[in-house]
Amino acid sequence: MNEKIEHVIRNTFNSANFIREVGYELKDIKEGFCETQLSITEKHLQQDGFIHAGVMSTMADHTAGTAGGTMVETDQIVLTAEYKINILRPATGKLLVCRANVIKSGKVLVVVESDVFSGSGDDEKLVAKAIVTLAVVGRKKA
Amino acid sequence: MNEKIEHVIRNTFNSANFIREVGYELKDIKEGFCETQLSITEKHLQQDGFIHAGVMSTMADHTAGTAGGTMVETDQIVLTAEYKINILRPATGKLLVCRANVIKSGKVLVVVESDVFSGSGDDEKLVAKAIVTLAVVGRKKA
Amino acid sequence: MNEKIEHVIRNTFNSANFIREVGYELKDIKEGFCETQLSITEKHLQQDGFIHAGVMSTMADHTAGTAGGTMVETDQIVLTAEYKINILRPATGKLLVCRANVIKSGKVLVVVESDVFSGSGDDEKLVAKAIVTLAVVGRKKA
Amino acid sequence: MNEKIEHVIRNTFNSANFIREVGYELKDIKEGFCETQLSITEKHLQQDGFIHAGVMSTMADHTAGTAGGTMVETDQIVLTAEYKINILRPATGKLLVCRANVIKSGKVLVVVESDVFSGSGDDEKLVAKAIVTLAVVGRKKA
Repeated sequence: MNEKIEHVIRNTFNSANFIREVGYELKDIKEGFCETQLSITEKHLQQDGFIHAGVMSTMADHTAGTAGGTMVETDQIVLTAEYKINILRPATGKLLVCRANVIKSGKVLVVVESDVFSGSGDDEKLVAKAIVTLAVVGRKKA
Repeated sequence: MNEKIEHVIRNTFNSANFIREVGYELKDIKEGFCETQLSITEKHLQQDGFIHAGVMSTMADHTAGTAGGTMVETDQIVLTAEYKINILRPATGKLLVCRANVIKSGKVLVVVESDVFSGSGDDEKLVAKAIVTLAVVGRKKA
Repeated sequence: MNEKIEHVIRNTFNSANFIREVGYELKDIKEGFCETQLSITEKHLQQDGFIHAGVMSTMADHTAGTAGGTMVETDQIVLTAEYKINILRPATGKLLVCRANVIKSGKVLVVVESDVFSGSGDDEKLVAKAIVTLAVVGRKKA
Repeated sequence: MNEKIEHVIRNTFNSANFIREVGYELKDIKEGFCETQLSITEKHLQQDGFIHAGVMSTMADHTAGTAGGTMVETDQIVLTAEYKINILRPATGKLLVCRANVIKSGKVLVVVESDVFSGSGDDEKLVAKAIVTLAVVGRKKA
């Protein structure tokens, strides 16, 4: 991926208000792949002290969208058409990492697999898995 | 539903940090049903000015969980096992409403259908639909 | 729907080998809606004597595709992009009925909700629910 | 996996009428894994000459169930609670292969990832991916 495209993608990532609000950070990006992370604080929890499923699914969705965005033309964007997420175990801990891989890139649909992990290094544990279908649409003219 | 149980459920709803953080409000609750709403502000948007899919999916999931919570014993809770959401159209506007209906209540699994609408009254439009599978688990002793 | 289009759709339904093989029948078709049925015999069962999930999901998928096919131009077809199905209860009995309703019809994607019931009349029971995403593609020239 | 358990699982696989009817064959089975295959004939096609989505989803589901069945006690069975499948490309060819891997094995739920391929060897191509949630239930006494 050339630097200019990477720059556009990084800017796009950070220009999503809800993503900044929750605190997700873009770590790595290459063609068909994206990695993000989130430092967990009290605000991300649900009523039983676990990380809220919405925190994990927003991460899975947005990381998938960013990975998918590497596959389309510069005058196109991707929008989430649908996704399914399995919460494999209640998640706790101080860090979430998400890795998204494009598994099919077509003209109108891009399909991405997103894995969400809690912890890091040897303690990393798969906590959620999503399959995300993105629709490729023309970018609106400014 | 008796008042005491409704009180517990309303407290549970409001004790989820991430839900308060994003701003979801519980409107109506009865056996097998829950309605929530969210006043949309700048912070809920994604990079193209639409409401972020994560905002809708967190709403669909949490409203489903609250509806599902009305079906279990007082020593049980429900946790999201998985869900699938279709974003039917890019959502804009100042208000989201979510209505969740339990479609199957079993001993170990509760299945809930969540519809998310933008706008209100005659302008209400279905923007997302989720099917949520909840696992019924024992409440941990304090 | 005019008679000519209904005729084309009924022919299409019956020209799917796997559908004839399993035994599904088209009952009713109108714009955005399709109803099918299946008489259950021994061959449709799984190892525990229940109707196989694959029998229900093929039905949910194909009925959705037929409902979706009513929404596109005559030079277009729909193909299943993805679907999710919840098997709400183990199904038994002599008859399955499926009703599919289009919930969103777009230029590139059509989203359909399919409900599968066992039994008939007052004994009808919802046994599975699917949400199906169809891709609209151009029909290949002969 | 000991021989006796493998024998039980192979028998279970072949005792599902619908599976024999469509023609699926069990190739490989070990703890948390199952591989199946299907020789494609005319009867497996849909109206446009592609392999019917129902053929792929039944395969993904049943192979997942067989993989999941390796993780439970001898007095338990698994039943499909729900699954989601993405058809990544229209499938053609003479052979389908499905490989299912358990990604989470819990006391009440087992989650399995099923990949369906067309072709074989170097020509093998991923045509569908499913994530399947299985419920663990007690085996009924004879």
